[in-house]
Amino acid sequence: MEKLELLYEGKAKKLFTTIDSDKLIAEFKDDLTAFNAQKKGSEEGKGTLNCKISTELFAYLEKHGVKTHLIKTLDGNHQLVKKVDIIPIEVVVRNTATGSLSKRLGIEDGKVLPFVLVEFYLKDDDLNDPIICEDHCILLNLVDDRAKLDILRQKGLQINRLLKEFFLKRGLNLIDFKVEFGIDNEGEIILSDEISPDSCRFWDVASGEKLDKDRFRQNLGNVKVAYEEVLKRVLGDEL
Amino acid sequence: MEKLELLYEGKAKKLFTTIDSDKLIAEFKDDLTAFNAQKKGSEEGKGTLNCKISTELFAYLEKHGVKTHLIKTLDGNHQLVKKVDIIPIEVVVRNTATGSLSKRLGIEDGKVLPFVLVEFYLKDDDLNDPIICEDHCILLNLVDDRAKLDILRQKGLQINRLLKEFFLKRGLNLIDFKVEFGIDNEGEIILSDEISPDSCRFWDVASGEKLDKDRFRQNLGNVKVAYEEVLKRVLGDEL
Repeated sequence: MEKLELLYEGKAKKLFTTIDSDKLIAEFKDDLTAFNAQKKGSEEGKGTLNCKISTELFAYLEKHGVKTHLIKTLDGNHQLVKKVDIIPIEVVVRNTATGSLSKRLGIEDGKVLPFVLVEFYLKDDDLNDPIICEDHCILLNLVDDRAKLDILRQKGLQINRLLKEFFLKRGLNLIDFKVEFGIDNEGEIILSDEISPDSCRFWDVASGEKLDKDRFRQNLGNVKVAYEEVLKRVLGDEL
Repeated sequence: MEKLELLYEGKAKKLFTTIDSDKLIAEFKDDLTAFNAQKKGSEEGKGTLNCKISTELFAYLEKHGVKTHLIKTLDGNHQLVKKVDIIPIEVVVRNTATGSLSKRLGIEDGKVLPFVLVEFYLKDDDLNDPIICEDHCILLNLVDDRAKLDILRQKGLQINRLLKEFFLKRGLNLIDFKVEFGIDNEGEIILSDEISPDSCRFWDVASGEKLDKDRFRQNLGNVKVAYEEVLKRVLGDEL
């Protein structure tokens, strides 16, 4: 399957049409952005690392009952995926307070939350992806009925349960993550986009070291080394 | 009843203790602030106008079944009120999109909303009163159970129904408003704080003219004239 036309270019990926109108090719870019692209950078090979990590995680989730858009990996940084209508809601799932949550609400950085927090953000770069509540989702027609919001929430929690256990066995603490969902041609809500150190926070259980995009956000250095370590853990045998 | 000690000073009011530990005196200030006190001003007589307007509106709401903290007005800009534990949630009720809602979510200014939107904001000046969803209210222990959030929402909607009709009969379109609630010494959630042109938006039905704090926020001039006009409408016979 080959790339035809560029359909969409986001901050971390490009999407291309293929000869099959139900399938797209996702290309993972080396670009790194943070704080809604106010901070920009690039790390050679990052796209390939994220493509591999995301492929493994999506395959793991599929095996455990979470439907995803992934069909197969084509090569280094390309995936063949189902074409979906992306729901413009970023579903953020948090186990531990850090980043924007801590800043916004004054919650101590690193505090383990008393329950898993699911938040919705409007996927809109021009508006800086503002946080939204359920009524805003309805107001903006982001979904056609309120029940779909509960599906997003439940899927977010299910993915969290699976990934938290998966990473804990590999010595990584899953702090939080962002996922996106799309509606496939059968009307089903399926996991789309990616799951990678760009969209998750991982803290090493033993050292507390950050192994995710916070290394870029906070100028901690060794961004690629951290992403390689995450891939190693994902691919490695359970500890 | 006389003021004893200053218990609390907010942006628009001071609260004083009295000889009765269940009662406080609220003093309405002439100060005007906007954009979380980044813009400051003062308008002589504004405190007295707001005290009068809020007294009339609270009395009207009481008459229609909404319990409030108001006991009586003492003089120009002082009210005797029940002492309550303020719930640190600003309940914002919106009929028409404008202000921060339009900016945050890109909704056209002046668009009538398809349903009455109730939003919660954390009452915390240091954090710039961020918007919060129900889970954040629980996370931050702002209420001790989720049912109280539904009470806040329902009370917000009830107040909106009553005030929207009240003002429409007086030629004013109630665009949105912010209310705060407290828990009285019997454990009941009652309306507290104030309802005035500082906390509501009113647009004249005939001319569309803004008769509220947006005149200060947007440097439209004639702030006091607008507040006087609102008081006149509130006190006046129905049109």
